[in-house]
Amino acid sequence: MTPLEALMAHARVTEALASVAGRLGWDQETVMPRGAAAQRGEEMAAMQRVLHARNSDPQVGEWLSAVVEPDEPVAIAQIREIRRAFDRATRVPADLSAALARVTSVAQGEWAVARAADDFAAFAPRLAEVVALKREEAAALASGGDLYDALLDDYEPGTRAADLDAMFGALRPRLVALRDKMLGALQPAPLTGVFDEAIQARLAAELARVFGYDFNRGRIDKAVHPFSSGSGADVRITTRTDPANPFNCLYSTIHEVGHATYEQQVDPAFALTPIGRGASMGVHESQSRLFENQLGRSHAFCGWLHGRMEAEFGTGSVGTPETFYAVVNRVHPGFIRTEADEVQYNLHVLMRFDLERDLIAGRLAVPDLEDAWNARFFRDFSVAVPRASQGVLQDVHWSVGLFGYFPTYSLGNVYAGCLYKVLREDIEALDADLARGDTAAITAWLTARLRNFGALRLGRETIRHAIGAEPDEAPLLDYLEAKFGELAGL
Amino acid sequence: MTPLEALMAHARVTEALASVAGRLGWDQETVMPRGAAAQRGEEMAAMQRVLHARNSDPQVGEWLSAVVEPDEPVAIAQIREIRRAFDRATRVPADLSAALARVTSVAQGEWAVARAADDFAAFAPRLAEVVALKREEAAALASGGDLYDALLDDYEPGTRAADLDAMFGALRPRLVALRDKMLGALQPAPLTGVFDEAIQARLAAELARVFGYDFNRGRIDKAVHPFSSGSGADVRITTRTDPANPFNCLYSTIHEVGHATYEQQVDPAFALTPIGRGASMGVHESQSRLFENQLGRSHAFCGWLHGRMEAEFGTGSVGTPETFYAVVNRVHPGFIRTEADEVQYNLHVLMRFDLERDLIAGRLAVPDLEDAWNARFFRDFSVAVPRASQGVLQDVHWSVGLFGYFPTYSLGNVYAGCLYKVLREDIEALDADLARGDTAAITAWLTARLRNFGALRLGRETIRHAIGAEPDEAPLLDYLEAKFGELAGL
Repeated sequence: MTPLEALMAHARVTEALASVAGRLGWDQETVMPRGAAAQRGEEMAAMQRVLHARNSDPQVGEWLSAVVEPDEPVAIAQIREIRRAFDRATRVPADLSAALARVTSVAQGEWAVARAADDFAAFAPRLAEVVALKREEAAALASGGDLYDALLDDYEPGTRAADLDAMFGALRPRLVALRDKMLGALQPAPLTGVFDEAIQARLAAELARVFGYDFNRGRIDKAVHPFSSGSGADVRITTRTDPANPFNCLYSTIHEVGHATYEQQVDPAFALTPIGRGASMGVHESQSRLFENQLGRSHAFCGWLHGRMEAEFGTGSVGTPETFYAVVNRVHPGFIRTEADEVQYNLHVLMRFDLERDLIAGRLAVPDLEDAWNARFFRDFSVAVPRASQGVLQDVHWSVGLFGYFPTYSLGNVYAGCLYKVLREDIEALDADLARGDTAAITAWLTARLRNFGALRLGRETIRHAIGAEPDEAPLLDYLEAKFGELAGL
Repeated sequence: MTPLEALMAHARVTEALASVAGRLGWDQETVMPRGAAAQRGEEMAAMQRVLHARNSDPQVGEWLSAVVEPDEPVAIAQIREIRRAFDRATRVPADLSAALARVTSVAQGEWAVARAADDFAAFAPRLAEVVALKREEAAALASGGDLYDALLDDYEPGTRAADLDAMFGALRPRLVALRDKMLGALQPAPLTGVFDEAIQARLAAELARVFGYDFNRGRIDKAVHPFSSGSGADVRITTRTDPANPFNCLYSTIHEVGHATYEQQVDPAFALTPIGRGASMGVHESQSRLFENQLGRSHAFCGWLHGRMEAEFGTGSVGTPETFYAVVNRVHPGFIRTEADEVQYNLHVLMRFDLERDLIAGRLAVPDLEDAWNARFFRDFSVAVPRASQGVLQDVHWSVGLFGYFPTYSLGNVYAGCLYKVLREDIEALDADLARGDTAAITAWLTARLRNFGALRLGRETIRHAIGAEPDEAPLLDYLEAKFGELAGL
């Protein structure tokens, strides 16, 4: 075997093991018995230990030194990813890597308990443990550089916090202005009524199909926090139902289907290789937010969805098509990021971005986090957080060590804005398609321009290749101002 | 660290990984999307590769050479199990071990398809591949000794086929005589009617609780083939429902609960160590069969179950308590091992034992297996197998490479006979307890005498310790002749 062949054979087994570890995470969030939490922590740690050992195997270093730099883009990208994983793994001690897996696995269950009890103080010591380990990991990875950038690089390779600062700085004033305008305008009342949860689940499955999800290589289950998990031939999503609010289930499903179909539509030739998955979290989020918002909350698609919901929940249950569209895009004060409208969503993210940078920099201590959260929330949203489950405990991310992840949500929104602009230009029948629940042309476009390539290119380059230009925040802001300007005038 | 400490730390991670691999098997049989089968094969192979590498790690060999033989029973047993795993793993090449995992993972799905289509010929080439790999594995393990014994040792350490031959030779004539007597006697008609599957599932969960299953550390799902999976804090079972036959669901649940509670009741101090699980497959089966038959099909317990089923399915739906008891213990010609009555069950097993020894010895070729099965079945049971799903394709075992496993079923029945005899002597209120669905005293006895010890002792020694005597087949035969003699006279 050549060094390249040896690296690829080694990577293939590593990818299969990473897939197993990922499925263990799915299991934990969907079907795991409660009493298994501690044992599961040991299992996660053991898997992490194996993955870390494989990624930092000195033999990999030797193959990487010996490999003849290929001149073919796929092989170049594979080597790039293998080298990245090797460099990161060799910097983080195995014990630290295993400790992180063990602690975050346990912390995840404890977060759910604390959230249910609205008790941040009970969870703070464990979260402090997670933050301490992540700071240790960041220090190992950064080797003198910025701690937060070192973590961000795990989710958005090649992007630095300073780049995001510039982009978010440009987003904020226009978003705030639009938000203030919308909150001053007449807004529709939310839906009232009780929406059968079994019907919601059935509609969620239908929406998944409508947006191209392949159930032969996936499944939908219920979980506290909706997520997508896996790659290749086994990509699963979860959803949740709330009898008072069917949109929570339906739009979170469309969102997760955006993630899942991205993974399902990567070139099968890349399966179980380092580039056989989404390019970055930002690109991933562009796929989910494009589906959820630009497409799912469009006037055209809302017409179709209104018809389906009225057929399922009964005549009059969801208002007229016009009020339905307004309700789906209602801008109103709220505490929960995942339920936020398109206008305010990024303001939620920007706040987390700042708070988590303070945590990682050591400027903010975990015991002070709830107060810091509440103060910042009041400053940004002018309402007081009533309890921890609507504030600092609402997201699972920090409990499982995902620091550096939140900003990729807003980056994804920016990317979705870029993609949507070109998509509209390229697919003339876009609105007509959406009005009859047909996304075939959209999926074909996305697959050919972006999804098919997996992680062949880094995140920003993936978007640049798809749209044929440098991505920036202008298309997103233009889209939001146009859409919500019109809604405010209704 | 001392060599002993190093071995235990190493084993702990290995056990956690084995637990992950086992859960992957659970996932495959319960929730895996169909299209994921090939990828799953790669994942299973990767896990097997990791486990094999850990078990055959030269460092383990060095620690084993350096370890000071402990004089404390727990440490002695841990070393015994670590040495066993090391000896077996170092004999089997890593590629063979991975190939077996990959092929059996794929074969399992193909078996299900072939079974549904009643098409043995379509499955035969894959099964031939499995048999060839198992023979290769057996040759590596046996190093000149008997191939079949080398495989049997995986499930029943320390027991050889010749020992079983003697035991089964003593079983057969008395079982055949009893079978012929019962088939000549008047037998009750089976239940008729349609039994709501949701109610069956609810009753199954109730039965699980009645027999001591801890849902906080387990769960029940549906699968084609009922099974129990896992150890320690995460032990899951599956069941299946048939609207025409509620006993299939209910008694397979009691059976699997026997397995699962055994694992749940091993001393928690042994968790994630080599002895933190059942002692052998034969001992395991003694727990499931004792629950299912000696207890579950007893006159006393049938009275309780009759009451519960009548309450759930309606008055008159399950006959009188007396006919119910007779129906539950009905002896009649049948093709399916898992549905066989207590009298004929072991005759099904003995037939498989002989056939699989012929396959492993190379005396029987896979393409001839269906004919051999049908001919032997006719000889032993005097009825012609109508189709493969009722014959050679009925069991999953061979497709997943479980050669040497079947005889442990009959060994388990023999052990269950031994345990039941002593249990009756020790627990005076046994029948009174069962008559009100109370198994607390039984569980306490089993935990204290047997379950608590996990794999501290080998299989036969585990039974010997529990009953205070050498186990043999006489108690099982005496119990069967007494119970069914009385039933024949009803």
